[in-house]
Amino acid sequence: MDHFFDALWERMQSQQSQLVVGLDPRLERMPEELVEDALRHYDGSEAIAMAIEEFNREVIDAVAPHAVAVKCQIAFYEMWGLRGLTAYSHTLEYAREADLPVIGDVKRNDIGSTAEAYASAHLGWPEEEELDDDEWFGPEELVADAITINPYFGSDGVHPFLERAEATGRGLFALVKTSNPSAREIQDLETQQGPVYERVGTLVEKWGEDYVGDSGYSLLGAVVGATYPQTLQVLREVMPHTFFLVPGVGAQGASAADAAAAFDRHGGGAVVNSSRGIIYAFNRDPYVEKYGESRWTEAVAAAARETRRKLWEATH
Amino acid sequence: MDHFFDALWERMQSQQSQLVVGLDPRLERMPEELVEDALRHYDGSEAIAMAIEEFNREVIDAVAPHAVAVKCQIAFYEMWGLRGLTAYSHTLEYAREADLPVIGDVKRNDIGSTAEAYASAHLGWPEEEELDDDEWFGPEELVADAITINPYFGSDGVHPFLERAEATGRGLFALVKTSNPSAREIQDLETQQGPVYERVGTLVEKWGEDYVGDSGYSLLGAVVGATYPQTLQVLREVMPHTFFLVPGVGAQGASAADAAAAFDRHGGGAVVNSSRGIIYAFNRDPYVEKYGESRWTEAVAAAARETRRKLWEATH
Repeated sequence: MDHFFDALWERMQSQQSQLVVGLDPRLERMPEELVEDALRHYDGSEAIAMAIEEFNREVIDAVAPHAVAVKCQIAFYEMWGLRGLTAYSHTLEYAREADLPVIGDVKRNDIGSTAEAYASAHLGWPEEEELDDDEWFGPEELVADAITINPYFGSDGVHPFLERAEATGRGLFALVKTSNPSAREIQDLETQQGPVYERVGTLVEKWGEDYVGDSGYSLLGAVVGATYPQTLQVLREVMPHTFFLVPGVGAQGASAADAAAAFDRHGGGAVVNSSRGIIYAFNRDPYVEKYGESRWTEAVAAAARETRRKLWEATH
Repeated sequence: MDHFFDALWERMQSQQSQLVVGLDPRLERMPEELVEDALRHYDGSEAIAMAIEEFNREVIDAVAPHAVAVKCQIAFYEMWGLRGLTAYSHTLEYAREADLPVIGDVKRNDIGSTAEAYASAHLGWPEEEELDDDEWFGPEELVADAITINPYFGSDGVHPFLERAEATGRGLFALVKTSNPSAREIQDLETQQGPVYERVGTLVEKWGEDYVGDSGYSLLGAVVGATYPQTLQVLREVMPHTFFLVPGVGAQGASAADAAAAFDRHGGGAVVNSSRGIIYAFNRDPYVEKYGESRWTEAVAAAARETRRKLWEATH
């Protein structure tokens, strides 16, 4: 089975990109014509879901040359109920056909057999011979190439995901230090051996040690916000075998230079996510003047290209 | 709008019950005949979902006189993909018709507009006048009466849920101290003012202070495992206005006496969840001999009645 982060690193080198584009579909920000077109042909949540699917297809086509993965925040699909989750499933399918890996930003968390159930849903089922009864093999409608998890339960809540990721060739990112202001309330609490996020980071590094691939990174990556560059540097040091997913660049205020501390000396070991700054680029300077809403996919492509370039230059 | 915990406390008094029954459907543990019957009439995930729905309907009918709520662990539905989530939705609907509140054990977590999106999915949509455009009002297929959340993001990840719970008359339980052995790895880390779980408990108590109802409890409850009775006692003291959801009784090893520390002096302020010990009672002593699989719903009812009684006696 291929190691998720080995494959990702290969892709990063060949594309010269460390960019992940977040597919967080918000109807109120999408091109009006696209939404109205869906509303002309469909009703209710069917119309909403069709608009989301069409928007995502266009964004995937626009960013595929510039991004090494897309990240789907499942909350923006779950909010539209079952039909919204079908749109999530269709988006995963479309990205797979476009050969673009998808990170399912699901932040699932639980222990034991419950964690295994989430793993079946989002990382895929174990091999048939490992099942008691193959009639009960489930569908893979929600399965992504990697997912985010929340580590608050400790190792009981991480190992079931890790074992499944190894079995299915997929990857994980555990929340360590998030990019929001109130992250400090729990994550920055001081213990005798450093703040909580550093202790969690040390645990994540340790939990992943039996799952390190050829690129030097384990199957258990970490989410580390770019809004705290010094923290990023400390965690990079205590987590040398942990691949980082870095949110907070762009709309959340951090720059490519801020994110640079997440990378190793080869410009590997991390990817940076940007969502709003790219997928709604047609609404903001400098793209709004140059492209406008009628050429919105060109604005999305230009923003992805530009963000990719800035990141690459800040790390090479 | 009714306050979720005021309504729950009223129900607890009139039913003399503090019991929540966990609907964690596992095909391999269900009555064989029920599963085989579904497989005779349906295929693949349709058969699985139909078995789950039928099992849950029977369990809801059996436990309704003895339990004050049921808790659906969404992972056991999500693992069966979109059809599994439809079974989740149908189960919520059936419980609502049976006038039994449902706790959606979803442990969702995120910040800002993403947290709001999860809140729309699981706690319901805000009033129409608060929406920018009422055409985009979403479905309520996954909406429960209360849900569990993970507080690792701090207040940014809790307030959006809390505001929505107030607007829709629903309730929340934030993870504070979980019942699994490795909970200690992060939750028991020592800070200068006590272990992390105590600090999180103090935050949860504070976050909820503007949402306290007539019963004295806020809309932000807490998940506190019964496997650590002393911890339960400490948290009960530092969180006087926080309603507890206590897992870990029964299959996970804690007794009704262990759980007693979660309650206030009126026997209120907490509910205890039991899943496997009740819904699969027909597979274990003393119920297996008395009822066997053919009368499995009677075993489920007897186990619920007995657990309810033990809890009530341990706290009165």
